[in-house]
Amino acid sequence: MTLYELGETAIVNRIVKRLNIEFDDCAILNLTDTEYLVTTTDMFHRVTDFPVEMSTWQIGWMCAAATLSDIAAMGARPQGMLVSMGLPDVKPAFVDSMIEGMDACVRRCDTAIIGGDTDSHQELTICGTALGRVPKHKILRRSGANIGDLVCITGCPGMAGAGMAALGKGLTEQEIQDSILVKKFFEPIPRIKEGLRLAESGAVTAMMDNSDGLALSLHQLADINGCGFRICADLIPVLPEPEGSLDHDPDPDMALALYSGGDFELLFTVRASRLADVRRACELTVIGEATSNGVFLAEGKGEECTTKKIERRGYRSLVHLR
Amino acid sequence: MTLYELGETAIVNRIVKRLNIEFDDCAILNLTDTEYLVTTTDMFHRVTDFPVEMSTWQIGWMCAAATLSDIAAMGARPQGMLVSMGLPDVKPAFVDSMIEGMDACVRRCDTAIIGGDTDSHQELTICGTALGRVPKHKILRRSGANIGDLVCITGCPGMAGAGMAALGKGLTEQEIQDSILVKKFFEPIPRIKEGLRLAESGAVTAMMDNSDGLALSLHQLADINGCGFRICADLIPVLPEPEGSLDHDPDPDMALALYSGGDFELLFTVRASRLADVRRACELTVIGEATSNGVFLAEGKGEECTTKKIERRGYRSLVHLR
Repeated sequence: MTLYELGETAIVNRIVKRLNIEFDDCAILNLTDTEYLVTTTDMFHRVTDFPVEMSTWQIGWMCAAATLSDIAAMGARPQGMLVSMGLPDVKPAFVDSMIEGMDACVRRCDTAIIGGDTDSHQELTICGTALGRVPKHKILRRSGANIGDLVCITGCPGMAGAGMAALGKGLTEQEIQDSILVKKFFEPIPRIKEGLRLAESGAVTAMMDNSDGLALSLHQLADINGCGFRICADLIPVLPEPEGSLDHDPDPDMALALYSGGDFELLFTVRASRLADVRRACELTVIGEATSNGVFLAEGKGEECTTKKIERRGYRSLVHLR
Repeated sequence: MTLYELGETAIVNRIVKRLNIEFDDCAILNLTDTEYLVTTTDMFHRVTDFPVEMSTWQIGWMCAAATLSDIAAMGARPQGMLVSMGLPDVKPAFVDSMIEGMDACVRRCDTAIIGGDTDSHQELTICGTALGRVPKHKILRRSGANIGDLVCITGCPGMAGAGMAALGKGLTEQEIQDSILVKKFFEPIPRIKEGLRLAESGAVTAMMDNSDGLALSLHQLADINGCGFRICADLIPVLPEPEGSLDHDPDPDMALALYSGGDFELLFTVRASRLADVRRACELTVIGEATSNGVFLAEGKGEECTTKKIERRGYRSLVHLR
């Protein structure tokens, strides 16, 4: 059996187990008696990770955003980013533009690119590493959710997936530029401020980002916390109308919300009694609650309510060891 | 003009200047009032960076060693390593073996792999990121050398290059296994202990690793410190006799010592009055002294002494932004 037949989840579990690594959005190190250092690394390749429609500037932005999203997911404050690049023999303007996109995203998160490495490579390869720090009593891990906690999310899950779907159906260059869905997909904004404010609130019990999709993230949270989730379909934010000539159909929208990747929103659980405090921390949507077991989607209301299992699948091209 | 025509040094300088990055073996961050966090990242690709004779275990070891060498060069204590891998569709045993080699090297340096990321990629790609901490008053930067300081080096520069040359001339599998030169090339030991003890001594004024070769490292130190160096050919450690059927000729030996890469030794300057203290810290060889300008090699003694310029060239397949 080869690695790809085995599947990336199995490979990662194999490595994590062998090295006895704690699995979270970031690796966590003792910094001082009162603070943790959190670090995360993400690797990207031109063909696998970046749609052809993406500009060089956006490739840079996306790499920084995806890496910093893991810092946000711990409730940590970014302290810098390192960037390794495997560069093909392109024009220097290509690198300038990519670095500019990266730098713009990193600055937006009040931090800086502090170092890196270059190597020659036929296919563009980028590896970002981000550092953050967080007071020990405020860190938000994937573990900590309790039955009865409310499940919340920032933003609108499926936006990036809807952007991807729109591209798949063919958009003109102008439509691509104008599309808020494509922009969300190509230029995600790491939820650093939201993460910091949620950590500050003291009312969040567990958190992660939903970059692998909502369904898979819920399953991961359920596994780690030994709980289940009941998500209400009616509570999931409705995707904006797609641009261009696309049909707007609620069924594929729900599939996008659950199973598509590329969003970098925060998924977290909150003590029900503290919801008002968390609402003051950032904009969020309550989409369900933590239960004793099973990850279910409830559709309809009252006697007509039906539940179905949320499948354990999502976007697994980028697989995290943490 | 393309990136490769421009040359990697120029590209790196371009990025470093644009982002206003301080150039050293590691990026340096304030950790507390008394300590720095140092971080470094290195990217490797199968074809560019690993000879075909290298085992999978050795690939893992080499990646960890090259990354940790930058931590050693700051006089810092390693705090962990992150590893991103772009993996082709190979047998799981391949990854197991690579991870084992990496883990062995990291453990040898009293630290651990704490996280990472996986991605699919046709050609094996590895990106290592290492973290270290060091008291502020002990950190060893590339800057700090003064005219009259002694130039010192750990180990024997050119060993890895001699290993590479031996492979190029064709060795049997058994000869490869038995060769101390090839072992030095394939399984370099990061000078973490030496770095820590040199930092502790308080007598070292500037330090870096010589992974790009002795000549290029000397030129980099000269540039940063606004000084020159006079290296005595007779003081450079003699390479061990090569194995197999290779000729032993002192001229190519000197070329290897100066211009070949792949060694991960420490190159540093020491206050002349404090040499005895530094000798107690670790095994070293004094190879010359810091002068007002020019990087020269002095050959012969007394009236028959001749000097020639040491060229600004070396091993630049891995180019550091820091």
